[in-house]
Amino acid sequence: MRTVLVIGIGAGDPDHLTLQAVRALRRADVVFVIDKGLDGGGSQDDLLALRTELLRRHRPDGGYRLVTAPEVDRDRGTEVERDDERYRDVVVDWQDRRARLYRDMLDAELADGQTGAFLVWGDPSLYDGTLRLLDRVLAGAGEQWSVESVAGISSVAALAAAHRLILNRVGRPVLITTGRRIAEGMPTDVDDVVVMLDGRTAFATLPDEQRRELHIFWGAYLGTPDELLVAGPLVEVTDEILQVRAEARENKGWIMDTYLLRRGADER
Amino acid sequence: MRTVLVIGIGAGDPDHLTLQAVRALRRADVVFVIDKGLDGGGSQDDLLALRTELLRRHRPDGGYRLVTAPEVDRDRGTEVERDDERYRDVVVDWQDRRARLYRDMLDAELADGQTGAFLVWGDPSLYDGTLRLLDRVLAGAGEQWSVESVAGISSVAALAAAHRLILNRVGRPVLITTGRRIAEGMPTDVDDVVVMLDGRTAFATLPDEQRRELHIFWGAYLGTPDELLVAGPLVEVTDEILQVRAEARENKGWIMDTYLLRRGADER
Repeated sequence: MRTVLVIGIGAGDPDHLTLQAVRALRRADVVFVIDKGLDGGGSQDDLLALRTELLRRHRPDGGYRLVTAPEVDRDRGTEVERDDERYRDVVVDWQDRRARLYRDMLDAELADGQTGAFLVWGDPSLYDGTLRLLDRVLAGAGEQWSVESVAGISSVAALAAAHRLILNRVGRPVLITTGRRIAEGMPTDVDDVVVMLDGRTAFATLPDEQRRELHIFWGAYLGTPDELLVAGPLVEVTDEILQVRAEARENKGWIMDTYLLRRGADER
Repeated sequence: MRTVLVIGIGAGDPDHLTLQAVRALRRADVVFVIDKGLDGGGSQDDLLALRTELLRRHRPDGGYRLVTAPEVDRDRGTEVERDDERYRDVVVDWQDRRARLYRDMLDAELADGQTGAFLVWGDPSLYDGTLRLLDRVLAGAGEQWSVESVAGISSVAALAAAHRLILNRVGRPVLITTGRRIAEGMPTDVDDVVVMLDGRTAFATLPDEQRRELHIFWGAYLGTPDELLVAGPLVEVTDEILQVRAEARENKGWIMDTYLLRRGADER
């Protein structure tokens, strides 16, 4: 039996780690590093630095092997991003190719009886492909493999905490969606929408009649010393967010941001 | 300046606590206990036991005061639960009455320069009223008050981890909603819906044509030694869940459950 742990390490603050995640980290014989790519070069360095910091803090013994996998390329052009079906095909094909790579890596690096760990941003259950990848990698595997998921603080929870928000209004739903989806318009049947993976600042491109009824609670680099927060009526703060975001991205070389769009912010 | 911390303590496992939450807990001069009521008597004892355990582990010094607030009653009758507007009014009125009680409590128990902490289940940003309550309590307060929210592992994240789920499919949204809402029917524009606060097993009452296309991933007492999990096509496992749920509720005296409804579970 080999065990693979998928550990959510939180949104950026090393102290987002749960005690359960600390224990999981301590069980690992091998720590696998997948880099998600995000906005490219700069982000990798910052994200790798946090992983290194977590291992330094919680595995000072050094009794593990660190295995870094080369990232698998995929088409991240805007044309693909804008085409729903094509985007999905590109992501699925990319995950297939990653699956082959990771199967080889797991076979080569993890011996019988050993435990490997993947450290993933936020929570493994939200917009992270590692569990899906492992399902595919290990489907039909002759040997016995056990996969465990360790929950983490998502950027959604970190955004809410930073703005001291309750995401839902009393008895009402919350939608978590992507920048690509929200670019098609604010849904009519949900008044509280959290947007992740928005590289194209879709909030700024919504029709005026939608923008006028929305508040935005925006955050970037959540949980880190570089955290940026802006909140207010969308029509009043859009330009500020666009400017703050562009400057930060220019300075750091990458950005990862999340936001809540709230219709009728005065209501409870 | 007085500081009030709202600390998410996770879904039931004492190790859901984040390192940030441990640090927050250690800052508290006063720990306030609100009991949410849930299903009544039995749950209180179990939930209070977890809080006591967390304090024992992380504040062995005992250098804090524990202040338990009497719960404020509200109408939890099924008639109210079934009427959307009336439900909201009842909850809002209940929160107003709690606000007065908690304002008095905070004034009486927290001195200038001190830090108080509320320990809340899951994450303070999802279906928990404490932050809303504090906003109301402290609105217009002459003194200076500071409120901080500390993110926690929600029952949504705990459910996903227990089933090793990714809640979203590639590039697609996730809706988090209530039992009352889902009883009106599965939304047509979202295929992954997490249901919380469902005391009436709404999944069993959906129209047959909806039930046939859904998978359910159900969990109760998530993160605890009593954790219960059932997953499968909704039409095949509904009776099993109803039976497991009824027996557990009978045995423990209370139940808290959460589930994901997934349309087209074979698709990625």
